[in-house]
Amino acid sequence: MTDTQAGAGIAPDSFDENATEPAALLSGKDFWSTREGHGIRSLVLTDGPHGVRRQSGDADHLGLNQSVPATCFPPGAGIASSWDPTLMREVGEALGREARALGVDVLLGPAINIKRSPLGGRTFEYLSEDPRLTGALAVEYVRGVQSTGVGTSVKHFAVNNQETDRMRTSAEVDARTLREIYLPAFERVVKEASPTSVMSAYNAVNGVFSSENRWLLTELLREEWGFDGLVVSDWGAIKDRVVALAAGLDLEMPGTGDAGTEAILQAVRDGRLESSVVEASVERLRTIAERTAPSGDATEIDLDAHHLLARRAAAASIVLLRNENETLPLRTGQRVAVVGELAVAPQYQGGGSSHVNPTRVDLPLDELREALGDEHVVYAPGYSRTPDEDASGLLAEARTAAASADVTVVFVGLYEEDQSEGFDREHIDLPSPHLALIEAVVGVAKKTVVVLSNGGVVTLEPWHDRVDAIVEGWALGQAVGSALADVLTGAVNPSGRLAETIPHALADTPAFLNFPGEQEVVRYGEGVFVGYRYYTSVDRAVRYPFGHGLSYTSFSVEAFEVEADGVDTAKVRVTVRNAGDRAGSDVVQLYIAPAPSPVRRPIRELGAFAKVTLEPGESTTVSLALERRAFAHWDARAARWWVDPGTYRVELGRSASEIVAVRELSLAGDVERPAALSLESTVKEWFGHAVVGPVLMQSMMADATAEQQAAAEANASALKMVESMPMGQFARFPGVDIPEEALEQLVALSVSAAMPDPASEPAL
Amino acid sequence: MTDTQAGAGIAPDSFDENATEPAALLSGKDFWSTREGHGIRSLVLTDGPHGVRRQSGDADHLGLNQSVPATCFPPGAGIASSWDPTLMREVGEALGREARALGVDVLLGPAINIKRSPLGGRTFEYLSEDPRLTGALAVEYVRGVQSTGVGTSVKHFAVNNQETDRMRTSAEVDARTLREIYLPAFERVVKEASPTSVMSAYNAVNGVFSSENRWLLTELLREEWGFDGLVVSDWGAIKDRVVALAAGLDLEMPGTGDAGTEAILQAVRDGRLESSVVEASVERLRTIAERTAPSGDATEIDLDAHHLLARRAAAASIVLLRNENETLPLRTGQRVAVVGELAVAPQYQGGGSSHVNPTRVDLPLDELREALGDEHVVYAPGYSRTPDEDASGLLAEARTAAASADVTVVFVGLYEEDQSEGFDREHIDLPSPHLALIEAVVGVAKKTVVVLSNGGVVTLEPWHDRVDAIVEGWALGQAVGSALADVLTGAVNPSGRLAETIPHALADTPAFLNFPGEQEVVRYGEGVFVGYRYYTSVDRAVRYPFGHGLSYTSFSVEAFEVEADGVDTAKVRVTVRNAGDRAGSDVVQLYIAPAPSPVRRPIRELGAFAKVTLEPGESTTVSLALERRAFAHWDARAARWWVDPGTYRVELGRSASEIVAVRELSLAGDVERPAALSLESTVKEWFGHAVVGPVLMQSMMADATAEQQAAAEANASALKMVESMPMGQFARFPGVDIPEEALEQLVALSVSAAMPDPASEPAL
Repeated sequence: MTDTQAGAGIAPDSFDENATEPAALLSGKDFWSTREGHGIRSLVLTDGPHGVRRQSGDADHLGLNQSVPATCFPPGAGIASSWDPTLMREVGEALGREARALGVDVLLGPAINIKRSPLGGRTFEYLSEDPRLTGALAVEYVRGVQSTGVGTSVKHFAVNNQETDRMRTSAEVDARTLREIYLPAFERVVKEASPTSVMSAYNAVNGVFSSENRWLLTELLREEWGFDGLVVSDWGAIKDRVVALAAGLDLEMPGTGDAGTEAILQAVRDGRLESSVVEASVERLRTIAERTAPSGDATEIDLDAHHLLARRAAAASIVLLRNENETLPLRTGQRVAVVGELAVAPQYQGGGSSHVNPTRVDLPLDELREALGDEHVVYAPGYSRTPDEDASGLLAEARTAAASADVTVVFVGLYEEDQSEGFDREHIDLPSPHLALIEAVVGVAKKTVVVLSNGGVVTLEPWHDRVDAIVEGWALGQAVGSALADVLTGAVNPSGRLAETIPHALADTPAFLNFPGEQEVVRYGEGVFVGYRYYTSVDRAVRYPFGHGLSYTSFSVEAFEVEADGVDTAKVRVTVRNAGDRAGSDVVQLYIAPAPSPVRRPIRELGAFAKVTLEPGESTTVSLALERRAFAHWDARAARWWVDPGTYRVELGRSASEIVAVRELSLAGDVERPAALSLESTVKEWFGHAVVGPVLMQSMMADATAEQQAAAEANASALKMVESMPMGQFARFPGVDIPEEALEQLVALSVSAAMPDPASEPAL
Repeated sequence: MTDTQAGAGIAPDSFDENATEPAALLSGKDFWSTREGHGIRSLVLTDGPHGVRRQSGDADHLGLNQSVPATCFPPGAGIASSWDPTLMREVGEALGREARALGVDVLLGPAINIKRSPLGGRTFEYLSEDPRLTGALAVEYVRGVQSTGVGTSVKHFAVNNQETDRMRTSAEVDARTLREIYLPAFERVVKEASPTSVMSAYNAVNGVFSSENRWLLTELLREEWGFDGLVVSDWGAIKDRVVALAAGLDLEMPGTGDAGTEAILQAVRDGRLESSVVEASVERLRTIAERTAPSGDATEIDLDAHHLLARRAAAASIVLLRNENETLPLRTGQRVAVVGELAVAPQYQGGGSSHVNPTRVDLPLDELREALGDEHVVYAPGYSRTPDEDASGLLAEARTAAASADVTVVFVGLYEEDQSEGFDREHIDLPSPHLALIEAVVGVAKKTVVVLSNGGVVTLEPWHDRVDAIVEGWALGQAVGSALADVLTGAVNPSGRLAETIPHALADTPAFLNFPGEQEVVRYGEGVFVGYRYYTSVDRAVRYPFGHGLSYTSFSVEAFEVEADGVDTAKVRVTVRNAGDRAGSDVVQLYIAPAPSPVRRPIRELGAFAKVTLEPGESTTVSLALERRAFAHWDARAARWWVDPGTYRVELGRSASEIVAVRELSLAGDVERPAALSLESTVKEWFGHAVVGPVLMQSMMADATAEQQAAAEANASALKMVESMPMGQFARFPGVDIPEEALEQLVALSVSAAMPDPASEPAL
């Protein structure tokens, strides 16, 4: 949140803008900038992620006015569908250049929370339901922006997956789910791209607000992951400045006048806060100010070149979901009916703090007319954004247009007011006038192509089966029109792949019953089973799976080799050929199916991926590394990553639901030392212990009569009854009565058998 | 757990059997009895729930020998399907008489944990997935047994829904789910039937072992619900005797020699335990000993009468799932092929502590031959319980039998080793030889009837659609054969209704991903959405819904009136007519669909039910009371039951999925006082407050220019962005700057508007 627009009653900020107290540097000067003093310059922090939202003028800090024009690149939901880290980096570099030119020191992005529910208000800003895809793209975003000297702020740390009551709600998530789903993208970015800053989320995690969460901001982020940048609050996220600072939150934004500074100074005077904490945060601010200081002359921005990049990025983000009988691309000379007002008033981003004032906007209708020739294109709006009395007239007009054409292209989607920061959606349906338009034309059109513009997932029911092609345009940024025209006409061969599942219905989604929670608590009841991890593991049919996307050409796999290159890593080589007659790009998707494990694991998880571009007939061999983490799960009890020894399956998929080739992979994995027994260990564990078990059995049977021995043997299945009983309790049973000293001796025996061998300790 | 059969190494218990220390009375003398002393007699506690498992002889305390014969009534999974509390009471009375005759003071039952997953090893002992049905039956069980002077022990308190690692696992359940799903049956029994004792469960609840859980055993059970009986441990459940006693656990079973007593005495000496705690527990034991003391002469048990009751109860428990073209009942003179070894070696109970040594067993084949005439019945085993070399021979023989008959009745099901205390199932499939038998005969039989015997739910795939009738026999007790014959031949008109859902597949079940948990923790991620509450709320298709069951006659509803009779209760009158030509019983099922609520509620929940028996053509009007709890949800934040004001739907259902009539019901419900505001209240709550909102709006807009006012009005949707921000944070924003004093005045204003009116306090 940084786009306030809330009421009026504006009073000038009376606070000393040049900080005399170091502590004063740790609260913003105003909405978008920090204070200067003690040799530290003022920094400007401004919203991203997909464009620079620089608000000019002093009177503008409530955000009532438009920001300065800047290139609106595809928002997260769009660009993640490119599955293209290289492209992400190019976009990041362009964003950095524009930020620098506009005097921005830190761009607030990337936004990398995991899409837990399609209802989440900011899913259009976020990248994916998969942490690996999210992390890979976010790393390149940060590298791209920071290559220009501009800083980034990775947000929202952490578990900010909903808007409903976001400033009071606690996300209740178990440790394994945190580590495997909600934290890995942050971890990867921190470790691989050294972001300038991390932005703390509004919400609480397991009862402690992110902004006051010492485990999150200090123990995990700094001490475990090695983060050396600045932690900044989401705008207005801080409840108690002193608690937040002590937890590791360096910079409070926006400014709150003197309040924060005074609270800090008072806490230091009272001895509740070490002054060294204040100093450390100020030094971090200094470091960041130095790292992001402008060098050399600001270069002139080539807005045309940036628009072309935005167009290329948008085209690469489009996902061709369906294309029966090669309905697409449109052919030269075809009569095309374009229906749907979104063709002339496109939706290409969502509402809230990420909203960019674009340098220009390409309109789909204009671009299609230019590509196909005016004379081949007819247009009818079909519906009106403003409530219209004569909906039937609009539909009749659209039907007439459709009936006259060879192909009808229907533009439908969500408006900005349907998908925005600040609130969550309540359904995943298209607006009913849009559904009515599809219904109206599908009966009369020779061929129907549906073009979707929706930052958040929408259901494709009930019309899916009755249309010939579906183009998922997500949120494409300001080049929306030209990019869609490029794909529709075949100027660009679509190569996007779904970064999130499209379900049949909202009720099918994993968090359906646990979103958005109630009474300020949201239980992450689905655990690690988020997105495709859920659908595949519970065998729930979806409309289109994660990873799905068609092309105008076809690709064949010619070789697929998997080889362990250590106890917990592997190398994979995949040879892909473009088997069609158009150049195109394919995404090699590797999924890992787990070895037997003591924890419940998804049936497959994305392990690695690579995008390849091939001329017709061309083939290439891609080498992919499957890292330790691709096989590991978080062992919550021991607080460690753990690779189970055993046989994994490496699956080559066209999507998470369509596996085209499988290789088995045997990994030595991590080796557990024989566990020491305790009185809490179960009867099964005692009898099953390699050293203790036989001793115990012998001593227990020593005094038994032959009859008792026979009875015990005959009762093997009854033994299952007590297997789960802790030995400490079982030993006291009447008739069992194992003496305490005997148990103690056996425990000692197991301890000596379990002596640690430091060489076998697993890596983290 | 009470059936140990574990190894040998038996040593005599050396402990003083007549307790000289009062504390010694709080640990058992041996496996099944308590110590005597201080004027308190020794009590015998013995397994139920569905029969008396009295083990005779001193040498038998490890359970290696059979128990004394007793009537084996239908286990919980069976009798719950009768939906007949009156029948349950009759069975309870018979159980009490047998217990008394066998010298048993306390029968360990009923077992009333909620069936969370069909995999649960003890679901065959438990009653239902619905707490209201469970509670109604359990109340009558307790009343029935206790009417004979014998005590009961309601178990397993609480949340004992799985066997896997049951002695170490913590069930992690939120407060609302505990109150609405896992505790209400216990609460009802305690409040309405005053059970002699409650048995604490093995597992932990939210991190604290049930046996050491003071909240559970004292605050909730005694202080909130008013329980005045004895808390006894499940056998071997105690880890720390002193902690358990302090938490409210009176009696440790079985005996542990001197260990428990010595620990208690030491703790009293050390001042860690008040001696009054010991005294209170001893007094409870004394009270229970007095309440259960035999009076008068032991009556001779009429085992024939009890067997007839077992037969009536079993027949009432059978659920006719499917009956295409009136395949059933079997007609006189039809040639009937009986196939499946279970027809001669029936399964009628599960394994573990509830296992009863029956007084006799009715075999299905014998009973069918007697009812239909030997000459009309052919039999083939079809499969063998012991692995058989010539499975194909058995199948061929069964095919031949089926081909020769008018109707083929196939007996399939689960064996005792498939469903037992001590371990959970891993799938819900029938044994593959049984599936092969169905497959073999269904192609050659003119009509196929499948008779199921399975304590836990099995899937009916893939054969369901290809058979003509399905009889779900659950676990029917020793009269299994005669009861099945009664229903198959029409001597009894089936009237059972499913007390648990039969899903299509295990992966469809609500706890699929969260059962049985891992690393000693099981997350109840599905919350209150257990059983039909899940399937209906997520719109998941099931094979047969909760409440389903057919009859050989048909029933019509002739009137359905619903009327509020208070702010939170209602009266319902339903007139049902037997529209067919056979006498039969119907179950009137009322479901409540909630009014709009601040919490996520199931789309319907069972609110009341009644079983009615009608002659052909007869009608009756049933009056049902919908009590406050039928409408209430647990408000976890305020720790209270709460009835939302608004319009509820009262639904008359043939099952949870088939609603045949609906009435709207408007309830005044509980009225919330206008809430006092705080700095944590959101901007939305402040502006929406009836008293404070207008004042705030006026003061904020007072100094605004006309332009600012217009902009603010135009930005209504942007206001949504900050709605969820706590006012304390919003007020500090640059440009907002509401002075602290002003906020304090407004809080005071809201507090005075929120002054409590004691008369409007809701009842518990």
